[in-house]
Amino acid sequence: PANKKLLVLPGDGIGPEVMREVRRVLDWLDRRRHVTFDIEEGLVGGAAIDAEGHPCPDTTMEKAQRADAILFGSVGGPKWDSLPFENRPELGILRLRKDLGLFANLRPAIVWSPLAQASSLKADLVDGLDLMIVRESTGGIYFGEPRGIETMANGMRRGFDTESYTEEEITRVARVGFELARKRSNRLTSVEKANVMQSGRFWREIVTAVHKAEFADVELSHMYADNCAMQLASRPKQFDVILASNLFGDVLSDLAAAVTGSLGMLPSATLGAPDASGRRHALYEPIHGSAPDIAGKGIANPCAQMLSFAMLLRWSFGMDEDAQLIEKAVEKVLAGGLRTADIMVPGAARVGTSVMGEAVVREL
Amino acid sequence: PANKKLLVLPGDGIGPEVMREVRRVLDWLDRRRHVTFDIEEGLVGGAAIDAEGHPCPDTTMEKAQRADAILFGSVGGPKWDSLPFENRPELGILRLRKDLGLFANLRPAIVWSPLAQASSLKADLVDGLDLMIVRESTGGIYFGEPRGIETMANGMRRGFDTESYTEEEITRVARVGFELARKRSNRLTSVEKANVMQSGRFWREIVTAVHKAEFADVELSHMYADNCAMQLASRPKQFDVILASNLFGDVLSDLAAAVTGSLGMLPSATLGAPDASGRRHALYEPIHGSAPDIAGKGIANPCAQMLSFAMLLRWSFGMDEDAQLIEKAVEKVLAGGLRTADIMVPGAARVGTSVMGEAVVREL
Ligand SMILES: CC(C)[C@H](C(=O)O)[C@@H](O)C(=O)O
Ligand SMILES: CC(C)[C@H](C(=O)O)[C@@H](O)C(=O)O
Repeated sequence: PANKKLLVLPGDGIGPEVMREVRRVLDWLDRRRHVTFDIEEGLVGGAAIDAEGHPCPDTTMEKAQRADAILFGSVGGPKWDSLPFENRPELGILRLRKDLGLFANLRPAIVWSPLAQASSLKADLVDGLDLMIVRESTGGIYFGEPRGIETMANGMRRGFDTESYTEEEITRVARVGFELARKRSNRLTSVEKANVMQSGRFWREIVTAVHKAEFADVELSHMYADNCAMQLASRPKQFDVILASNLFGDVLSDLAAAVTGSLGMLPSATLGAPDASGRRHALYEPIHGSAPDIAGKGIANPCAQMLSFAMLLRWSFGMDEDAQLIEKAVEKVLAGGLRTADIMVPGAARVGTSVMGEAVVREL
Repeated sequence: PANKKLLVLPGDGIGPEVMREVRRVLDWLDRRRHVTFDIEEGLVGGAAIDAEGHPCPDTTMEKAQRADAILFGSVGGPKWDSLPFENRPELGILRLRKDLGLFANLRPAIVWSPLAQASSLKADLVDGLDLMIVRESTGGIYFGEPRGIETMANGMRRGFDTESYTEEEITRVARVGFELARKRSNRLTSVEKANVMQSGRFWREIVTAVHKAEFADVELSHMYADNCAMQLASRPKQFDVILASNLFGDVLSDLAAAVTGSLGMLPSATLGAPDASGRRHALYEPIHGSAPDIAGKGIANPCAQMLSFAMLLRWSFGMDEDAQLIEKAVEKVLAGGLRTADIMVPGAARVGTSVMGEAVVREL
């Protein structure tokens, strides 16, 4: 069979540094399994603005269209902060999501026991936490039309956006959520503001219908977004899978990540719909940003990027076993007491990016 | 001068029980200061649906228009959960906000030292927490038009809402935020998603302009809503005043409340614009809901309702000293070891609603 096509988009800030550690894992895979990947590299974010004048140029989109999976680093930094809205590094990731139809953003929030102390929450409230947020990622207020800043008839200016969800958009992301729940603890919490938003009422109606028609075996509950934020901050372990719109999913998944206390450890996947041949676009990225303040210092935590690669192996190539080996290796390194600065605790050994990366590969 | 007109709207669930304790404070005020209030009572929420077929009937609106201040309990319960959207108890509070022009919702998140242990966060991260969220409460996606559920030309259905903010709406709520910041630690964090929403870009533009023109002495920063959720869950004490739209403010203020660990302790105020004579509509309510599961059992915490009344004295009648006396009395009762069930800790004395209320009045 043809080699698997991998597109690597390191991006800005610490992106290129942490991506380098993934190369070690790729080498290990090469040696171990004689799996080879065709690896292309591409530009995105500020790096792409500097080189080609656009945060996600067509050259990158062409590579992305061809790739079986995309490993994304992170984008943005003070250098590009004052650019106009239409040309910000963030638009790199938004274009990739939209143009590749990556509608299901999977955001695990996991607390590895050795890191339970790192959380701002009391350790027993988060120890063993393992929840998954399924965030819709090509619709809603992120892309809804009409939107803009305009002067109204009375001379007053206003800014406006449209939150909009079709039946089809809700159905397909709900299916991803329910299917995931089935593979986990079989519980799904669907989040909206059905008490104030029409799109929220509609969201609840469609999720309920999909549940009844196809997933009646999964335990479904509905929760308002404000309550969900409260529950995540107070009793996060009550959740298994959380399903939310683009906007609520953005806020709640970052909140869940913060609750774990170790942002530098969390990967994510964003999946498209399978085509007739079963092929689906997919992009994997750590949830941490480009962290310009520590970029170039060799102290960033490479784990989230490595774990994003593990998710890629699992979701895009069905290589569950290899994914697990990587996850276990990371866990062992943590249990062994190595820590990058972001997850440092008294008594642990503080190491830099490459020592951490090497240690993971040694465990492998 | 004419007596101050107070409208009391107990609502549903624990609303009437906790409101009863406020009567004791009113009696104390009567005795102490010879201040008398003209007190009217009205129906709202499920209670109003049952009696008059509407969650906020015109009879209640007329009383509300006349009142100098409104003390609100809480609305909702399983009995009314299956009612159509247009007739839910929640619409009671939404109509009051909209029709009275109550555009500035003030949501303090305070941790009293004796209660720092009640938080899900580590005690040192929340001990002494004292932040204020200023949430816009008559605009944005809560009321924006067009909105609805419709069948499109292609036969597909969709649900949609409009987020919209005019320059005037942003300006007036920003002013409330900046003025508050001046009375506090002089720092304001304005929250939006200017990186993906046009209304967010516009929000940032207007807040920046108001700051430059009128409040340059206040330290202003801008934060994305997802990041703000993260920061509230991990380092809440970094904030002084947070300014946000209706929707972000809803989620973030509930999150901040959860972070304190004592929802039963938190009041809120929602203020309108002063008219030519300086009179402004204002509504005060605890942030906890109607808690139907414990309603009628006499175990609900009356503190939030009593503290809402303290806010009322301060904001509507300039009775700062009396407000402080009530706040201090609550603090002393807590320090003395009395606790209702929701804030119970080992070693404290567990009491019901009326013992708690009596104890506060005794301290007074
Ligand atoms: C960079 C930004 C546009 C993006 C978003 O809001 O979706 C980010 O916060 C995320 O969650 O991936
Ligand atoms: C009851 C509901 C409509 C309301 C809101 O979403 O504004 C509540 O959550 C609040 O924050 O006061």
